[in-house]
Amino acid sequence: MTSPAFIEGLAGEIEKRLKRSKLAIPVGVSNRHCHLTEEHFKILFGPGAAPRKIKNIKQPGFYAAEETIDVMGPKGILRKIRLVAPYRAHTQIELAATDAIGIGLNPPVRESGDVKGSAGAVLIGPAGRVEIREGVIVARRHLHFSPGEAGSLAVAPGEVVRVRAGTGGGRSAVFEDVVVRVSDKYSLEFHVDTDEANAAGLKTGDVVHIA
Amino acid sequence: MTSPAFIEGLAGEIEKRLKRSKLAIPVGVSNRHCHLTEEHFKILFGPGAAPRKIKNIKQPGFYAAEETIDVMGPKGILRKIRLVAPYRAHTQIELAATDAIGIGLNPPVRESGDVKGSAGAVLIGPAGRVEIREGVIVARRHLHFSPGEAGSLAVAPGEVVRVRAGTGGGRSAVFEDVVVRVSDKYSLEFHVDTDEANAAGLKTGDVVHIA
Repeated sequence: MTSPAFIEGLAGEIEKRLKRSKLAIPVGVSNRHCHLTEEHFKILFGPGAAPRKIKNIKQPGFYAAEETIDVMGPKGILRKIRLVAPYRAHTQIELAATDAIGIGLNPPVRESGDVKGSAGAVLIGPAGRVEIREGVIVARRHLHFSPGEAGSLAVAPGEVVRVRAGTGGGRSAVFEDVVVRVSDKYSLEFHVDTDEANAAGLKTGDVVHIA
Repeated sequence: MTSPAFIEGLAGEIEKRLKRSKLAIPVGVSNRHCHLTEEHFKILFGPGAAPRKIKNIKQPGFYAAEETIDVMGPKGILRKIRLVAPYRAHTQIELAATDAIGIGLNPPVRESGDVKGSAGAVLIGPAGRVEIREGVIVARRHLHFSPGEAGSLAVAPGEVVRVRAGTGGGRSAVFEDVVVRVSDKYSLEFHVDTDEANAAGLKTGDVVHIA
């Protein structure tokens, strides 16, 4: 068991973990929001409408739009859910579990884009409404890396890591089940929803570390 | 460093941790609720009113009451906040951070009873309203033990431990900053609020372990 190869492997693993644990990763707290297909957007806002940009968000290519929709479940309505544009191939509503439970929905924890068999809802816009049979999810927490950052830390796309969020606010926590995503469109960030942020006393811009 | 006394100490510590980690601890998710002084209750519900029991809650001596109040902050109102009776020496409103932020409050994370300098709010009942200057808190997560349970696990009142909440739902987490509370009125339970429960995919009755 204590062959030179074993010791070397162990040393390499420890070195990798030490290196990873030193990187300060900024937190991005995602409020509930929606992504819409062009078809759904036109039904909700009218055939002549188009998303109007308020501001770019940190992940390149995406922007917060002026448009908001209401999302209705069996027990209530969440109002003014912000559209994040541009259009997507599938409509996707990302809610915190607290939000979802409040309107009687029980969406699964999913990675963005993986909406098959997720929860349905009625979407309400100023020009119309759409009933979707799937598309409502609770976002799976994840880390965004550029390829360079991922390479230097030896993290692979899809790898599941743990993130320590200890802010000294009396709610330190280690989040497990954190998926690594790598893209040249991504900048370094730990994405959580409002439930996760509030459970650990985190705000956007706080810093966390891989554990 | 590797004296017999050191080894023995280490073995004892490992034995203690192993024993602790085996105990299945039921989760109790606390929804937002309030405790009221008799004075505040009478203002809010009228001088002739008294709390009417709906049902006992798991911690002995406390019960959920029919009465609810509205809690107003600078940005909104949370409606139907359930009273947990009997009366207390200090009025205390326990909100999840998500709830509090929604009405413009920023209460500190505190242990129950420690309300000094916490957040204020306006409490609204059917018979009147009260402006409190302190009393709104986010509850510090904690474990309840009977003295017998605490003794057998060698946990001391006030000790801070870690709790692993791994339910296989894609949101496993280790909660740090978990305070141990011991009383002959307590039955074994891990108390979290709705933000914490939702961040880890926990429901009342799920089981967690000391990490």
